[in-house]
Amino acid sequence: MQIIECIPNVSEGRRADVIERLAAAVRAVAGVRLLDYSSDPSHNRSVFTFVGDAAGVKAATLALFEHALAAVDLRTHRGEHPRLGAVDVVPFVPIEGQTMQECVALAREVGAEVAARFNLPVFLYEEASDNPLRKNLEDIRRGEFEGLAAKMAAAEWAPDFGPAVPHPSAGATVIGARMPLIAYNINLNTDRVDVAKKIAAAIRHSSGGLRYVKAAGFMLEDRRLAQVSMNLTNYQKTPIFRVFEMVKREAERYGVSILESEIVGLVPSAALLSAAEYYLQIEGFSAQQILENKLKE
Amino acid sequence: MQIIECIPNVSEGRRADVIERLAAAVRAVAGVRLLDYSSDPSHNRSVFTFVGDAAGVKAATLALFEHALAAVDLRTHRGEHPRLGAVDVVPFVPIEGQTMQECVALAREVGAEVAARFNLPVFLYEEASDNPLRKNLEDIRRGEFEGLAAKMAAAEWAPDFGPAVPHPSAGATVIGARMPLIAYNINLNTDRVDVAKKIAAAIRHSSGGLRYVKAAGFMLEDRRLAQVSMNLTNYQKTPIFRVFEMVKREAERYGVSILESEIVGLVPSAALLSAAEYYLQIEGFSAQQILENKLKE
Repeated sequence: MQIIECIPNVSEGRRADVIERLAAAVRAVAGVRLLDYSSDPSHNRSVFTFVGDAAGVKAATLALFEHALAAVDLRTHRGEHPRLGAVDVVPFVPIEGQTMQECVALAREVGAEVAARFNLPVFLYEEASDNPLRKNLEDIRRGEFEGLAAKMAAAEWAPDFGPAVPHPSAGATVIGARMPLIAYNINLNTDRVDVAKKIAAAIRHSSGGLRYVKAAGFMLEDRRLAQVSMNLTNYQKTPIFRVFEMVKREAERYGVSILESEIVGLVPSAALLSAAEYYLQIEGFSAQQILENKLKE
Repeated sequence: MQIIECIPNVSEGRRADVIERLAAAVRAVAGVRLLDYSSDPSHNRSVFTFVGDAAGVKAATLALFEHALAAVDLRTHRGEHPRLGAVDVVPFVPIEGQTMQECVALAREVGAEVAARFNLPVFLYEEASDNPLRKNLEDIRRGEFEGLAAKMAAAEWAPDFGPAVPHPSAGATVIGARMPLIAYNINLNTDRVDVAKKIAAAIRHSSGGLRYVKAAGFMLEDRRLAQVSMNLTNYQKTPIFRVFEMVKREAERYGVSILESEIVGLVPSAALLSAAEYYLQIEGFSAQQILENKLKE
């Protein structure tokens, strides 16, 4: 079975009729399942999550572009969340029976078709881009829609596909491939938020820590607990158990222990199974030994 | 989705044509999948593993009885493995969308039908029996086919279903419901087999240890390593991580550490996910957060 997850972010989070039309367009594609969609009015942005095979998610993505470009005009769009396109970003995520390379190829194929069909500049990002400037979504989006024409005037910001200038109402779009994100929080047995912030600085990639960790320290005011809040951006290369052990060790430095951890939203089973293998020191284990996998064969 | 696993043990492990006929009888039932079957000629015994819903596994079990009873005569059967029936034992195991209570009900329903249709005495065992004498298969099987008539003459060994005397060629059969077994071994960083034997004695139920653990100490001669070899008979009530931690602590008593552990054969994903939850101290986790479960909905 081939399963790719696609999580387009659309710059419309207020008009329920538009959002429902976008959801319906995805649902109408045979073989695609819309797992979830949610809108934030203050961000004025909606996130759609659907799954299917390569042909299915491609068709659903193109349908979403068609409806979003007809309904959203960034010249009058206001919202708290940064954005540079009517369809702001489209990541493809390999879930089952698909390699990252296949998702990269799909992102490029969809990018080329979006550019051609809608006359829209397309930037590739994350795994789909070989350009270090375009690995991070934030770097591409910096300046937003309002600064896009000036940004694209520089040769280094020529799009990967499509015209060299922004689409008048839809701006540009960012399409790529990435691993599933895991939102993972660790609550410390302390109300000292400075400890959480120091641990976050120690473990996150941007300040010298683990390659696929984003982290910040927060205070959970209602519980008087300090929290290390994280995004794990590649659980295969920076596994969750290594992050947990590093946080635990750093906390000990301050005489603090881990109270509990929390996974927010969805997690691929492999991310947790690898933790079981690690702690139980299981050798020679294969995914084919998981009863449920055997049943799926 | 309703998935029950059924693992009948048949007293025939030598005649390939008979074994193939039994496998074909299972395969012929719509909605049932034969996952595996293997035969041991010295045991003169074959183990079939198939899955399906309640109606499917019932039909496949009855088909297996029909063919096995026509082909196997215990009066001339010889083999190393103890046995009391042509179809020796039939456990039903709840895998997905089924409770243990539903598997117990299924075991009783199949037991009653086997007794009526084949005029065969049926003993219920494990979760399907309320009689403490009939919880353990070994207790029911003691005396084997050759001693069965004498055993059944005692009132306490009246069958749960069927005639009060053995079937002339097929003996009796044991039908029940149980949790999935996990075959789990821990290799110690030592060649002292006495340490493995002491640890096995400390952790197994029969000598005062954990309720759902069977264990023995062995020497892996080729690697010069002592091994604690275990069967975990209820991974929900005696979880794998607690067994691992207890072995680790007992080993420390002798200055020994754990080199590695090994899962032999299949394991339900929940058994490993619970270990991840335990070691990562994950609070408030739900199986619905597993991406693969969400996709199955």
